[in-house]
Amino acid sequence: MNFASDNVVGASRPVLDALIAANEGARASYGNDDETRAVEARLSEIFEREVAVCLVATGTAANALALSAFVPPYGAVLCHANAHVMEDECGAPEFFAGGAKLIGLDGVGAKIAPQTLARALAAYPAPTRQSPPFAVSISQASECGLVYRPAEIAALAEVARGAGLSLHMDGARFANALVALGCSPADMTWKAGIDVLSFGATKNGCLAAEAVIVFDPARAKALPILRKRSGHTLSKGRLLGAQLLGYLGDDHWLANARHANAMAARLADGLRRLPGVRLAWPAEANEVFPVLPLPVAERLRAQGAIFHPWAPTALPEEFVLEAGEGVFRLVASFATREADVELFLARAAEAVSAAA
Amino acid sequence: MNFASDNVVGASRPVLDALIAANEGARASYGNDDETRAVEARLSEIFEREVAVCLVATGTAANALALSAFVPPYGAVLCHANAHVMEDECGAPEFFAGGAKLIGLDGVGAKIAPQTLARALAAYPAPTRQSPPFAVSISQASECGLVYRPAEIAALAEVARGAGLSLHMDGARFANALVALGCSPADMTWKAGIDVLSFGATKNGCLAAEAVIVFDPARAKALPILRKRSGHTLSKGRLLGAQLLGYLGDDHWLANARHANAMAARLADGLRRLPGVRLAWPAEANEVFPVLPLPVAERLRAQGAIFHPWAPTALPEEFVLEAGEGVFRLVASFATREADVELFLARAAEAVSAAA
Amino acid sequence: MNFASDNVVGASRPVLDALIAANEGARASYGNDDETRAVEARLSEIFEREVAVCLVATGTAANALALSAFVPPYGAVLCHANAHVMEDECGAPEFFAGGAKLIGLDGVGAKIAPQTLARALAAYPAPTRQSPPFAVSISQASECGLVYRPAEIAALAEVARGAGLSLHMDGARFANALVALGCSPADMTWKAGIDVLSFGATKNGCLAAEAVIVFDPARAKALPILRKRSGHTLSKGRLLGAQLLGYLGDDHWLANARHANAMAARLADGLRRLPGVRLAWPAEANEVFPVLPLPVAERLRAQGAIFHPWAPTALPEEFVLEAGEGVFRLVASFATREADVELFLARAAEAVSAAA
Amino acid sequence: MNFASDNVVGASRPVLDALIAANEGARASYGNDDETRAVEARLSEIFEREVAVCLVATGTAANALALSAFVPPYGAVLCHANAHVMEDECGAPEFFAGGAKLIGLDGVGAKIAPQTLARALAAYPAPTRQSPPFAVSISQASECGLVYRPAEIAALAEVARGAGLSLHMDGARFANALVALGCSPADMTWKAGIDVLSFGATKNGCLAAEAVIVFDPARAKALPILRKRSGHTLSKGRLLGAQLLGYLGDDHWLANARHANAMAARLADGLRRLPGVRLAWPAEANEVFPVLPLPVAERLRAQGAIFHPWAPTALPEEFVLEAGEGVFRLVASFATREADVELFLARAAEAVSAAA
Repeated sequence: MNFASDNVVGASRPVLDALIAANEGARASYGNDDETRAVEARLSEIFEREVAVCLVATGTAANALALSAFVPPYGAVLCHANAHVMEDECGAPEFFAGGAKLIGLDGVGAKIAPQTLARALAAYPAPTRQSPPFAVSISQASECGLVYRPAEIAALAEVARGAGLSLHMDGARFANALVALGCSPADMTWKAGIDVLSFGATKNGCLAAEAVIVFDPARAKALPILRKRSGHTLSKGRLLGAQLLGYLGDDHWLANARHANAMAARLADGLRRLPGVRLAWPAEANEVFPVLPLPVAERLRAQGAIFHPWAPTALPEEFVLEAGEGVFRLVASFATREADVELFLARAAEAVSAAA
Repeated sequence: MNFASDNVVGASRPVLDALIAANEGARASYGNDDETRAVEARLSEIFEREVAVCLVATGTAANALALSAFVPPYGAVLCHANAHVMEDECGAPEFFAGGAKLIGLDGVGAKIAPQTLARALAAYPAPTRQSPPFAVSISQASECGLVYRPAEIAALAEVARGAGLSLHMDGARFANALVALGCSPADMTWKAGIDVLSFGATKNGCLAAEAVIVFDPARAKALPILRKRSGHTLSKGRLLGAQLLGYLGDDHWLANARHANAMAARLADGLRRLPGVRLAWPAEANEVFPVLPLPVAERLRAQGAIFHPWAPTALPEEFVLEAGEGVFRLVASFATREADVELFLARAAEAVSAAA
Repeated sequence: MNFASDNVVGASRPVLDALIAANEGARASYGNDDETRAVEARLSEIFEREVAVCLVATGTAANALALSAFVPPYGAVLCHANAHVMEDECGAPEFFAGGAKLIGLDGVGAKIAPQTLARALAAYPAPTRQSPPFAVSISQASECGLVYRPAEIAALAEVARGAGLSLHMDGARFANALVALGCSPADMTWKAGIDVLSFGATKNGCLAAEAVIVFDPARAKALPILRKRSGHTLSKGRLLGAQLLGYLGDDHWLANARHANAMAARLADGLRRLPGVRLAWPAEANEVFPVLPLPVAERLRAQGAIFHPWAPTALPEEFVLEAGEGVFRLVASFATREADVELFLARAAEAVSAAA
Repeated sequence: MNFASDNVVGASRPVLDALIAANEGARASYGNDDETRAVEARLSEIFEREVAVCLVATGTAANALALSAFVPPYGAVLCHANAHVMEDECGAPEFFAGGAKLIGLDGVGAKIAPQTLARALAAYPAPTRQSPPFAVSISQASECGLVYRPAEIAALAEVARGAGLSLHMDGARFANALVALGCSPADMTWKAGIDVLSFGATKNGCLAAEAVIVFDPARAKALPILRKRSGHTLSKGRLLGAQLLGYLGDDHWLANARHANAMAARLADGLRRLPGVRLAWPAEANEVFPVLPLPVAERLRAQGAIFHPWAPTALPEEFVLEAGEGVFRLVASFATREADVELFLARAAEAVSAAA
């Protein structure tokens, strides 16, 4: 019953097999190997246009590189105040972008509303008083497990574009959001106005593989240099290429995401039905954020369930947390077993009864 | 006959097996997994003292992190003018160290002589004119395939220490140098005065795994933060831990290095005997730098041999390159087959005859 | 009736005279001149202990240098969300500190309450998730014209110290705060726990002169290097030294500040008495923040009064801004004439009557 | 007899007078004052085209800002190995340009020959191995007192342009070079291919005033932001504007430079005639670099002459420094008195005789 994160398991079998297969033989170094080339071609197919691709091993590197390619050191990025780039990357975006500034915006469920963005830009100080904004960054799915609809992204893109800003998507859980929406990768990105995407794969089946994807390749020229300069160009580049080849083959990535989302939905449904248990935000992708009486959470943990508390920010205004309650996060992954979900729900029901 | 680099092959079998074995099951994230913990303990054993260890996926990241932990943004690093950190890392050391300056010193075979270092420090401008030096970086083996003896390192360390500087070793080919010297890892590092080491493993059998090793753990406190901030903390940290577990087990790493060095020695011996062929520098580790008549090199390549030209810098003063000659680099790895070596030498002999 | 800022006038007469006097003759360069040496000695007297002094030409440089001397690139600074370092320096603190992160805290009147700081530190994420905090920065007087009492500073220092953080004071209006409190410079700084001070002089009588003052000189060793590296070491250093010599001589700086504060108090008193006019925050130093009906503000401007609107943040919770009202800022300086104050108040009274 | 530098004296009279005149009254802040506006217009006249101007207080700031506006953090600058930006600015260019790399080239008299630049670019590593070059920086006059002819600049510009690089001129001694050549400011800059100029004024009559001048204003858009972010935007901007107004008025700057050059020429002529005294490089602007027997130098200093030794690099190949000789630097300024020059020459003649 390990629901701590979608990064506590290893690679899924097809990913591992691809890695084993690619281990043999001599390959060109530094990302000039056949696997990497094949992945680049595959991603252009998936996104229905020629894209520039830059593979790296971590999501933090992907986000920070993506932002640094679109934001100069004297610029700023607008993002949600609870965005991963703002709160969980130890200053990596600022570091990669040479001291650029991140400006946090409010919004329920760690999503930015278009009118919030518009207001922030209207009130933004003159460029020599404050670092001028160059980009907006949104997380898909959001840090609270919510999913932006293509129309919502398009509305944000319109505001961003009107102010001359680029739009970045942190897609650490890209596949989970995608299958939740049932739209195409193109619909969820460049067709809605995304300029640059951190295409996550590690959480959904790889060991360590992410792609920065730039939809207008002309704007990606500095990326290979930025990647090398940040130590993220693997000499044996096949490690990244092979993982993603396995990941993207036979729609394996979509199957993984569908499974994770289904497990999360089952958890959410089961929890919501328990008396005294609510969800802080709807479980739209593979994360569930139940509000639990603290003794219930404690008992579940004592019985071996693993999950983290979550900061009670970005709640809807009308959502009041009672004394003795806490927000928690459960994450399902491609490897989550239905039996574990059922066991957890059973244990939760017992805990709620016991606490009543 | 691929002698282009020691990074054109994948992982050695024990490394791959360790990776496969570690893929199963749930693990703590971000380097708190059992494999990583075991590697940290193993490295303390290997170095005969408690060391601080920080695993990363690339040598450039290891070097840049190591330097940034010992050099503030306003400081300078003295290194050889042809050092990898100076010429081949696309500014990564400067980036990680926040704009710190690299100062290149001369020296035959890309090695720094203690008196060269002493002279450079004596002539160094006052701190508010030039960024004051905080560290010296040497490469073991050097970029020209030479190996510093422990006494040479100790002599450099004495000069460095006298000026209050730390001593860094870029050990991208640490194992090759080690088995060439036949000394202990401790002898070649902290006992000789090394403060921080980039312990390379990728070139010698891993897919992507290096360790920053700090011999005084008290000086390593910022490293985990610097690693995260540069996007080099893998969420599924077992990827690095498992590789190194396989690499360091059963002295596999030393066996790999011995094989590579033996293949290089065989190449060097064979080439040296050919009329009109010289070695730019002795082949002390796993790299051979023959000076070849250009038609010989061309013919070898036409026959499928893969190897790179090398810049004719750092040659001994008396070494005169004739018109029509070029310096080349051949690299042997754990995976180099004796048959390929013999074939190459045979082809080289033919080429020399043909060119005569 | 120019109340736009305290930087719209030139130097006060004694400052200019000192500059003229120091212009003659040859002097050692780069801050080794007699004037600068004398200022350093004078500041040690004023602060009743040996302090390290680093003169620069702008307040932004002073703040950014001060922070960069106490915060590494991977660290964070806690400050008020509306602090000058956060909102008005175009990312200079982040730039000087190599990408360090500024974290904004709430607080009425742009002051940080000790319990707010304590809560923020208690909730602060682990060091590898978020840049760890190294310093707290407060503004004296605050951006809303309020003054921290020594006991308030001591309470903040206690919290900061408990978490191992340094305490910085942005003293752009140091003298105004000092004379408002009537305490000694030592009481308001190191005796209350301030580690490093941006000692402002430009707004209060100089043309361009500020001092970074470090109360423990052992912690100031990097400052001269950081200053040179940021281009802030004047070759003809007497320019800074002379201004401050004139500024600090004969308590001229205190007289200037007393005058400015008195003018602000007169403005505040007069405005407060007008029907429909309130002050957003008490006028404790040389700034007045009236809430005016917009037509009143417009009329005053049409009659030649110069002053800026102010963002209605950091208001007390119970303070409700009505539609048709705005917050404005009036700043008095050493050069503000009483006649201008009286004229402004008369015009304001007329405007209020006209608007009624 | 102070020939230590051209920065040991204060401002020339017209500059000081302009400063005093501009001190009165209220002015718009942050460089929006009338004096600054007038200087901008005057510089466009002087350079015979509309230029973008950014005033700062130091030459290091001007150079570093200029380079950072044309070179991204991942780029490199080619300059002479002994350039001021390389050896005397404590890493400021690297800092401002976010970690960009400076690559030092050789050349007699600290001048870069076009073929040296061409060779360096031809041998330059691929962009993901080494930071790609974005700019070339030359010093006019050079650090050894030599002056680039417009045709030499044009030849460098052609090479630079062919590789897509911008060309920067460090004009700390712009006026001295200009009057030495007798050409127009336009001839020596944009007409010869200079893109961005550090227009020095401090050494030639101001207290602290330099201008970054961008010849294509469209490329200068980030400069005001970069200036503010580096703390170089004076709130009382008139300080810079006024100095330069006095400096540029009535060709005062050219008169100052002519005087300094004449004094240097007189020194050079007198020294060259002394037996056993040579010049390391011809004295083309306001600096003289005599090679003196060490006892001669010592005796002169004992008699009150002030001047610095100079590193014996960048000498012509055939120039052999004998044991017991040293290279020294004498700098003349607008304030150098003919009597001091004559006295120095007389003392030097005596010293030479005494040493014979």
